[in-house]
Amino acid sequence: MEYNTQELAQLYKNALLNDVLPFWKKYSIDWEKGGYFTCLDTNGQVYDTDKFIWLQNRQVWTFSMLCNEIEKREEWLKIAECGAKFLAQHGRDEEGNWYFALNREGQPLVQPYNIFSDCFAAMAFSKYALASGEEWAKDIAMQAYNNVLRRKDNPKGKYTKAYPGTRVMKSLAVPMILANLTLEMEWLLPSETLEQVLEATACEVMGDFLDQERGLMFENVTPEGAHIDCFDGRVINPGHGIEAMWFIMDIAHRKNDTKTINQAVDVVLNILNFAWDREYGGLYYFMDSKGHPPQQLEWDQKLWWVHLETLVALAMGYRLTGRQLCWEWYKKLHEYSWSHFADPQNGEWFGYLNRRGEVLLKLKGGKWKGCFHVPRAMYLCWRQFEALT
Amino acid sequence: MEYNTQELAQLYKNALLNDVLPFWKKYSIDWEKGGYFTCLDTNGQVYDTDKFIWLQNRQVWTFSMLCNEIEKREEWLKIAECGAKFLAQHGRDEEGNWYFALNREGQPLVQPYNIFSDCFAAMAFSKYALASGEEWAKDIAMQAYNNVLRRKDNPKGKYTKAYPGTRVMKSLAVPMILANLTLEMEWLLPSETLEQVLEATACEVMGDFLDQERGLMFENVTPEGAHIDCFDGRVINPGHGIEAMWFIMDIAHRKNDTKTINQAVDVVLNILNFAWDREYGGLYYFMDSKGHPPQQLEWDQKLWWVHLETLVALAMGYRLTGRQLCWEWYKKLHEYSWSHFADPQNGEWFGYLNRRGEVLLKLKGGKWKGCFHVPRAMYLCWRQFEALT
Repeated sequence: MEYNTQELAQLYKNALLNDVLPFWKKYSIDWEKGGYFTCLDTNGQVYDTDKFIWLQNRQVWTFSMLCNEIEKREEWLKIAECGAKFLAQHGRDEEGNWYFALNREGQPLVQPYNIFSDCFAAMAFSKYALASGEEWAKDIAMQAYNNVLRRKDNPKGKYTKAYPGTRVMKSLAVPMILANLTLEMEWLLPSETLEQVLEATACEVMGDFLDQERGLMFENVTPEGAHIDCFDGRVINPGHGIEAMWFIMDIAHRKNDTKTINQAVDVVLNILNFAWDREYGGLYYFMDSKGHPPQQLEWDQKLWWVHLETLVALAMGYRLTGRQLCWEWYKKLHEYSWSHFADPQNGEWFGYLNRRGEVLLKLKGGKWKGCFHVPRAMYLCWRQFEALT
Repeated sequence: MEYNTQELAQLYKNALLNDVLPFWKKYSIDWEKGGYFTCLDTNGQVYDTDKFIWLQNRQVWTFSMLCNEIEKREEWLKIAECGAKFLAQHGRDEEGNWYFALNREGQPLVQPYNIFSDCFAAMAFSKYALASGEEWAKDIAMQAYNNVLRRKDNPKGKYTKAYPGTRVMKSLAVPMILANLTLEMEWLLPSETLEQVLEATACEVMGDFLDQERGLMFENVTPEGAHIDCFDGRVINPGHGIEAMWFIMDIAHRKNDTKTINQAVDVVLNILNFAWDREYGGLYYFMDSKGHPPQQLEWDQKLWWVHLETLVALAMGYRLTGRQLCWEWYKKLHEYSWSHFADPQNGEWFGYLNRRGEVLLKLKGGKWKGCFHVPRAMYLCWRQFEALT
C-alpha cells in the first residue's frame, strides 16, 4: 500500500471529526447527572455507569483541547463543561486530593490512592480554563498540579505496599507524566518552574530509566538508575516507553535540541525491534527484559493506546528528523493498527485484542479506555502529517 | 477414552509421588538461605529468588500434609522444616501480621496488606505442628488463625481503597477460605469454635454468595447478599466458586448432610455450564454475570488451579453422590486438563494457557503458582478415586 502525507493528514482529521468525536458525543455524555459514561460496548451502549476519575478528566481535556486547537465550538465547550462542573463538585476529598472513582451521582467509591488522578485533573482543568476563561478552573488546575509536585516522591502515600528500605525503586510513570503535564500547563506556570521541571524530568527519564546499552526504557529502577533483578525491575512496557519518547521529543523540539530528538527516536526504534510480535504482528503489552515469564498475564495482548502512542511517536519522529526508519515503521504500525483496532462499522476503536489480533473485549470504553488516546493520537497524527505536507 | 476409578487413583498417586513432588524437591528448596524458590521455568530453573509468603506457606503445608496423610518421611519433614523455620524467623512484622513478600534472605519487601498470608500461615503451621510435634509451630498456627478472625471484617485494613459507606460489599474469598482453614485446624481448635465457624461460614457462602435463581457463586455481594450492578458486583470467578463448593461438600460430609452436598454439586454443574468454553474447551478465568466485558484482561485464559479444583470438586461430588453428570463432566475436564496443562517432558504442570489452550507463560512456578494446587489436587483426586474403587 502506498501512503502519502496529505492523505494521511486527511484520514486522521476525518476520523477525529467524523467518527471518534461523534461517537463520544452521542453515547457518553451524562447530561442528567453530569460527567461522562465511559463503559460503552461495541455499539456505544452504556454497560456500567461508574465514573473513573482518570477518564472523566481526560474527556474534559479532549473536548477543551479541541476548543483551543481547532475552533471554539459551542458544542465542544458544553461537553467539556458537563464534565468539568461535575468533577469540580464531586472529584476531590476534603484535602483536595482527587478520588479514583465515583458512582454515577458523584459519590466517592475509591479513595485517592495515587497521584495520576491529580495529574489528569491538572491537565483537564488547565485546558478547560484556557477554553472557557473560567478563573475557578485555573485554580483547580494549579491546586492539582501542586498536589502532584507535593506527592511525587511518595505517589501512593499510605497505600504504599512496599516495605520501606529493603528495595527502593522509582517508576518511569512519575517523571514521564510530570514532563508532559508541565508542558500542558505552560501557559499557567511561571517560566522558571516550567524550565526547571522540564529539564529535571527529561534528564531523569533519559538518564535513569533509559538503559544506555540496550536502548530500552525500564519501568522501575533504583533511585540512582540501576537495574534490579526482580519482576518489577525487569519489566518493559513498550507502549509506555514509546509514549515517553514523544513527550521527550516534544520538550526537546522547543529548544531545537536535535541530539535529544534523535536519541528519543533511537529509543523508539529499539523498543519496536524488541517488542514487535514477529509472528502475529503488533506490539506486546509487557515484556521481561531478560526474557523470563512476565508477571502480567495480559503481557501478549495488543492494546489500542500502545499502538496509537507509537503512531504518534513515529509520525513525530519522522516529521522532526526525516529518518527513513521512522517512515518504514510508521507504515507497518499503520497497517496493523487501522486494520485491527478501528471499527468502521460501529465507530471508534476497539481497545483490547488478543495476541493474534482478535477482539478480546467487545467494548469501545471501560474502566481504563475513554475519550482520550484515540482522539489525542488522531489529532496529533493529523498535525504531524499536515506539517509534513 | 475409557476411564476406570482404579486406574485414575493410580494415575494421581503416581503423578504426585513420581512427578510433582520430585520436581519441587529437586528445584525449589533453598537449603542455603531457607524457604523455597517458586519462580521456576519450564525445566525447573530458578528465574527469580523473591519469596512470596502465600507460596512459602503453601509449600510448608504440602510437605507437612504428606507427612500426616501418607507417611512420615524424613525427607518430606526436612523440606517442610526448611520453610517453616525460615518463615517463623522472617515472615511476620512486629505485630505478628504476615508479610506478602520477602527477598531471598528473608528481608520484608511487601507489607501485610491482606489476611490471606495469615490464612496460609495458619494452614501451614497447623499441618507442620502435627507433622513435627513442635509446640512453637502450634503457637504460630494459632496466632495466625486469630489474626484472621480478628481482621476478617476489614481484611485489607489501612490498605483498603474503597471509600467507606458508598458501596459496601463483602467478598466470597473471606468466608470460603475461613471455612477451609477452620476444617484444616480441626485438631487445634476447641470443638465449639470449630462447629460455630464452620456453620457460620458455610451458611454465608450458600446463603449470601450463591445466587439461588441462577445457581452461580458471585464474588462480591452486599452484606445482605444482594447483587450490585458494577464490575466487582457482576464478576464470576468460576474456579473460585467451584473450589468453594468442594470446601462445602467437605464440611457437609462431616455431618452426612446430603442435602447440602447435592446443592453444592448442583452449583458446580451450573458453573461448569456457564463457564465452559464451547469453542476451545476449558474454563474461563473471569466472567461477567450479565455478559458485559469483564474488567480482567486475563478473563479468557485457562488457569491450572481452576481446572485442578474442578477435578477435585467433580471427583468428590461423584464419590459423595454418585451422580452421573459429575462423572461425565469429570471425564471432559480430565481430558482437557491432562492434555493441556501437564508437561510429561519436563515434569509438573504449566500454569497459564491462553484461550486456545496454548502455553502462555513458560513456567512451572511464579509469584502465584507454587507447590500447592497441583500436589493437593493430585492427592485429593487419588483419595476420591481410591474410595470409589
